[in-house]
Amino acid sequence: MPAAHPQPLWQQRYGSADAPSAEPGNALIEQLLAHRSVRAYLDQPLPDGTLETLLAAAQSAATSSNLQAWSLLAVEDRQRKARLAALANDQAHIVQAPLFLVWLADFSRAARLAERHGRELQAVEYLDSLLVGGLDAALAAQNAVLAAEALGLGTVYIGALRNNLQAVIDELQLPPLVFPVFGLCVGYPDPSRPAAIKPRLPQSVVLHRETYRLDEQEPRRLDDYDRQVDAFYRAQGLENPPWSRQVIDRLASVDSLHGRERLAQVLHRQRLALR
Amino acid sequence: MPAAHPQPLWQQRYGSADAPSAEPGNALIEQLLAHRSVRAYLDQPLPDGTLETLLAAAQSAATSSNLQAWSLLAVEDRQRKARLAALANDQAHIVQAPLFLVWLADFSRAARLAERHGRELQAVEYLDSLLVGGLDAALAAQNAVLAAEALGLGTVYIGALRNNLQAVIDELQLPPLVFPVFGLCVGYPDPSRPAAIKPRLPQSVVLHRETYRLDEQEPRRLDDYDRQVDAFYRAQGLENPPWSRQVIDRLASVDSLHGRERLAQVLHRQRLALR
Repeated sequence: MPAAHPQPLWQQRYGSADAPSAEPGNALIEQLLAHRSVRAYLDQPLPDGTLETLLAAAQSAATSSNLQAWSLLAVEDRQRKARLAALANDQAHIVQAPLFLVWLADFSRAARLAERHGRELQAVEYLDSLLVGGLDAALAAQNAVLAAEALGLGTVYIGALRNNLQAVIDELQLPPLVFPVFGLCVGYPDPSRPAAIKPRLPQSVVLHRETYRLDEQEPRRLDDYDRQVDAFYRAQGLENPPWSRQVIDRLASVDSLHGRERLAQVLHRQRLALR
Repeated sequence: MPAAHPQPLWQQRYGSADAPSAEPGNALIEQLLAHRSVRAYLDQPLPDGTLETLLAAAQSAATSSNLQAWSLLAVEDRQRKARLAALANDQAHIVQAPLFLVWLADFSRAARLAERHGRELQAVEYLDSLLVGGLDAALAAQNAVLAAEALGLGTVYIGALRNNLQAVIDELQLPPLVFPVFGLCVGYPDPSRPAAIKPRLPQSVVLHRETYRLDEQEPRRLDDYDRQVDAFYRAQGLENPPWSRQVIDRLASVDSLHGRERLAQVLHRQRLALR
């Protein structure tokens, strides 16, 4: 078990104590900075009302043109979680977490509405609609993550749910015009396997002002970040390749997509034409 | 100025007082439920460190495979904000807000990293990478929204930034492999024009358990929601068409995309091939 970090949150996130002045002890901002993805859960059920609270938080997020073009699918059945885990890179925490949420981009509700009014929805065939549904689901999900953390729960997003998208669609019996954006495990973190705050890129590499201007120091800063992540891994007892190698390997070839190269094809089958 | 709402947050969001039991007075969850989009800002600058705090909150969100495939572009120049507003459906609050944030999906940083290591990034040409960048940017942006609210600020997302995407790309001088996902206005809400909590669809319409099963009551519940939104508009002194008509009109035809039908074409030009 790694030692508790005595450093302030800002330092854990950036490896530097230079915090800005706008958040003097603000509890919500502290919670945002303290986020960590949880991949080890207790076998402990969630209190009644948890799902409804997470959903209310999610629905309170902004949504493009108030379309609310998303739905939430809650999986608690252990066998179904196991089948989904097998489709998503065998991630054991999907089965372990008492609640597995699948965030769906959903234009089928609007299509049913239109059908009742004798109308059709041509705009759904365009790529922008895919983005609208996906982005709305993401804003909603992030609110649910924060609500979960406020309730003492932990979460981790499961993007690998797109590795075998057609099989997931079949398992969840999704109609046309619906697709799973990602999964989210929700449960009580196992205190014997605590997650740590992962360092992120320095702000100077991520932030641009007025126009996109390249920081001449970017190569040096990325090298520094590699070393910082390396030190983080060592402190966690992990032997991982450097961050830069992981990024490059993840994006280098079609093989690294692990099935996600078929996304466009599967979405076409869901009648999302991506024109 | 509309009267203050005496009802609890849950009732404002759903028109029903049946709140679940999992959030007894939790301050963060109260803030999530109280979210409203702000479209009227004071002419008041933000305290030093605000941008850095919002960015730290944003970077603390989860990111797919720790790729951090997004960047943030902060616009404060009034002329540039005015040009962007003209490209985004003439939304005056873009100029009014002291800070306009453009959230960028960004694979150019990874590509520069790969180039230094003599590698290429083929996976970026696939649709899933577009989603990864967009979703990561959305999770980050939503954290920034909540941090802003915790600081007493208001925000509103500007999806219309995709209406004239090529012109926005030119204005912000974005390199290939970068595209604007959406904008976000940040500023102090004008108390003389307060925003209200918008009602959302009932949970029974949005939530599915284990598999996607249609609620037989969906048509009736959507009709009820139409009436609820109508009452909300009237209380705000607004004369808007019913919600269902707005949804259908927004998705019915290519015309309703207001330029976003060119998204795939513009992304191709940014070397995001969407295979």
